[in-house]
Amino acid sequence: MKFCFELIKKEANTQARLGLLRTLHGVVKTPVFMPVGTQATVKSLTPEDLKDIAVEIILANTYHLYLRPGAEIIRELSGLHRFMNWDLPLLTDSGGFQIYSLGELSKVSEGGLTFKSPFDGSEHFLSPEEVMKIQENLGADIIMTLDECTSYPATYDHTLNSLELTTRWAGRCKQVKSREDQALFGIIQGGMFPELRRKSAEQIVGIGFDGYGIGGLSVGETKSMMWEMVECTLPFLPEEQPRYLMGLGKPEDLVEAISRGIDMFDCVLPTRNARNGSLFTSEGKVVIKNSNYARDRGPLDPNCNCYTCRNYTRAYLRHLFLAQEILSARLNTIHNLYYYINLIDQVREAIEENRLLQFQKEFREARKA
Amino acid sequence: MKFCFELIKKEANTQARLGLLRTLHGVVKTPVFMPVGTQATVKSLTPEDLKDIAVEIILANTYHLYLRPGAEIIRELSGLHRFMNWDLPLLTDSGGFQIYSLGELSKVSEGGLTFKSPFDGSEHFLSPEEVMKIQENLGADIIMTLDECTSYPATYDHTLNSLELTTRWAGRCKQVKSREDQALFGIIQGGMFPELRRKSAEQIVGIGFDGYGIGGLSVGETKSMMWEMVECTLPFLPEEQPRYLMGLGKPEDLVEAISRGIDMFDCVLPTRNARNGSLFTSEGKVVIKNSNYARDRGPLDPNCNCYTCRNYTRAYLRHLFLAQEILSARLNTIHNLYYYINLIDQVREAIEENRLLQFQKEFREARKA
Repeated sequence: MKFCFELIKKEANTQARLGLLRTLHGVVKTPVFMPVGTQATVKSLTPEDLKDIAVEIILANTYHLYLRPGAEIIRELSGLHRFMNWDLPLLTDSGGFQIYSLGELSKVSEGGLTFKSPFDGSEHFLSPEEVMKIQENLGADIIMTLDECTSYPATYDHTLNSLELTTRWAGRCKQVKSREDQALFGIIQGGMFPELRRKSAEQIVGIGFDGYGIGGLSVGETKSMMWEMVECTLPFLPEEQPRYLMGLGKPEDLVEAISRGIDMFDCVLPTRNARNGSLFTSEGKVVIKNSNYARDRGPLDPNCNCYTCRNYTRAYLRHLFLAQEILSARLNTIHNLYYYINLIDQVREAIEENRLLQFQKEFREARKA
Repeated sequence: MKFCFELIKKEANTQARLGLLRTLHGVVKTPVFMPVGTQATVKSLTPEDLKDIAVEIILANTYHLYLRPGAEIIRELSGLHRFMNWDLPLLTDSGGFQIYSLGELSKVSEGGLTFKSPFDGSEHFLSPEEVMKIQENLGADIIMTLDECTSYPATYDHTLNSLELTTRWAGRCKQVKSREDQALFGIIQGGMFPELRRKSAEQIVGIGFDGYGIGGLSVGETKSMMWEMVECTLPFLPEEQPRYLMGLGKPEDLVEAISRGIDMFDCVLPTRNARNGSLFTSEGKVVIKNSNYARDRGPLDPNCNCYTCRNYTRAYLRHLFLAQEILSARLNTIHNLYYYINLIDQVREAIEENRLLQFQKEFREARKA
């Protein structure tokens, strides 16, 4: 079965949409939040835990899996789905952002990206062609083109050159892609220049992909700048295809982005914060180590129906965190991911009923209270 | 409901027995292996995971829970069962062995044990009475008397004095015990002197408890010395009550001890080894980080039916271990505990059918192969 995106509904008062991503491994309702399983595992959770939370798609990081255990090994072991025992849809990124994040350990040339492994200092070179090969070996349902994440701040000229390199790489990626069962998404760059965002969108859409990622945001710019860039990019993306805002974000950012027309998200925030004992609740952030929870027999979030909130007290969660118990990471991760997934469920319902503006207002107010 | 032990069967050719521990939180088939949940959690697992493996009783460490979060807090939170969401039987040790293991940070007097907290250096004093209070606050189904673990090696005189102190402490524990819903086990000491093992057994049994722990073993003596001490103690314990060999051990030790008449065990070995990547299988020990597993698509143990073996390859388990993923600890712990629980199941079946000697022989040979 070939990938397709089905646009089901546009909300009456915003740009928000409902859709379905159809893949070989199942259907994903959009808008969707994709938990991050960097090293072929969403840290501390089994696939069953994820399914209990109603997670429909997860992301794995090509960069990490390329370095360890290696994409060839995963191919030999029948691909990433089988390797990690996840039979629902999977997306892999291109690794470009992780390599960009290495800073001085990485170098960009027309051919591709050169970088040193932080594990052993060994030198690696990844061309767009090689990145496609790796992602085909991994075998995710959705794969991404290699892009250059433009640094911030950057001049107009630098940004222009950078987005055009990203365009050439995107073309090379599309050219060598060989697996029919994988969808390929292009990535829009263009830094903080509306004109260049438009140029990048036109070029990438001109090549033609199964969906579009918006990259190069959340790299240090202000929130209003970020929204401006999202807003000036979206009109140049085809309505009938999915739009993926890469690496975002906080709960309130997701709601904002959805109202502007974004369909897909990924972020380490819920899982990483969980391990650090920082928990999202209907009543605001809970820092579980705080001493006022020492004797608190209430659930983490009285309005939450997740496994953690149904079975454990704040006092126990605090104890596990302070005792540095592994179960702390797990119970907290279950809760934070449930919070995200449940939030998006509610947003979808609000879109269905054309009351997203009202939902946004209530959501903002509840978090201020 | 009051605790009772029901002796169901004695094996024809060995001293092995089958029994039932009846407690307020359910029935436990003996012989039984009790996984260790030191800090009110069997590291990395939920209660549901433990029940999936058919764990019927777990042990928690009084010493650790006394220091963090504190027994008073656990009492306020309705006791250890509710605190950790475990509704099956629980046993707490007395903390004596952990304090003994502190070495120079601890001191014994007639009144009790003085020690410094390794967390903050604060000084603590635990009398037998205080230890009973703590264990009543925790509320496990089976609690243990405070004993002095005789150091090894020790002179006859030192051992004699030490076992008599343990006897006096046992009497004080029994005297102050107030909860009817908890069973209290006495602990036999006596070092490596058969005569003193007998003396300790007679004294402790003379006071009268719901069951008996054999303590002070596996402290540095040879294996044959240990078995000698077990063998010279058991004849002085009442047949109608459960016998608990504390802190043991390796799979082969469990089988040996059961054939001599032991009913209960606890040990960190399966859980600790799991986290270190050392795994028990029907084909011997597997050190999962070994490079020969890098492309191994087989299960950890082809003869095992645990969740880990049903769903994951050795290659994936190796990857998780090398990547220091939390899921590694969890999948490995599930497997190792399943191995122990399943082994004891098989031993019980062999006892039922009076073929324990044959089972022992086959078990030894399979592990040599």
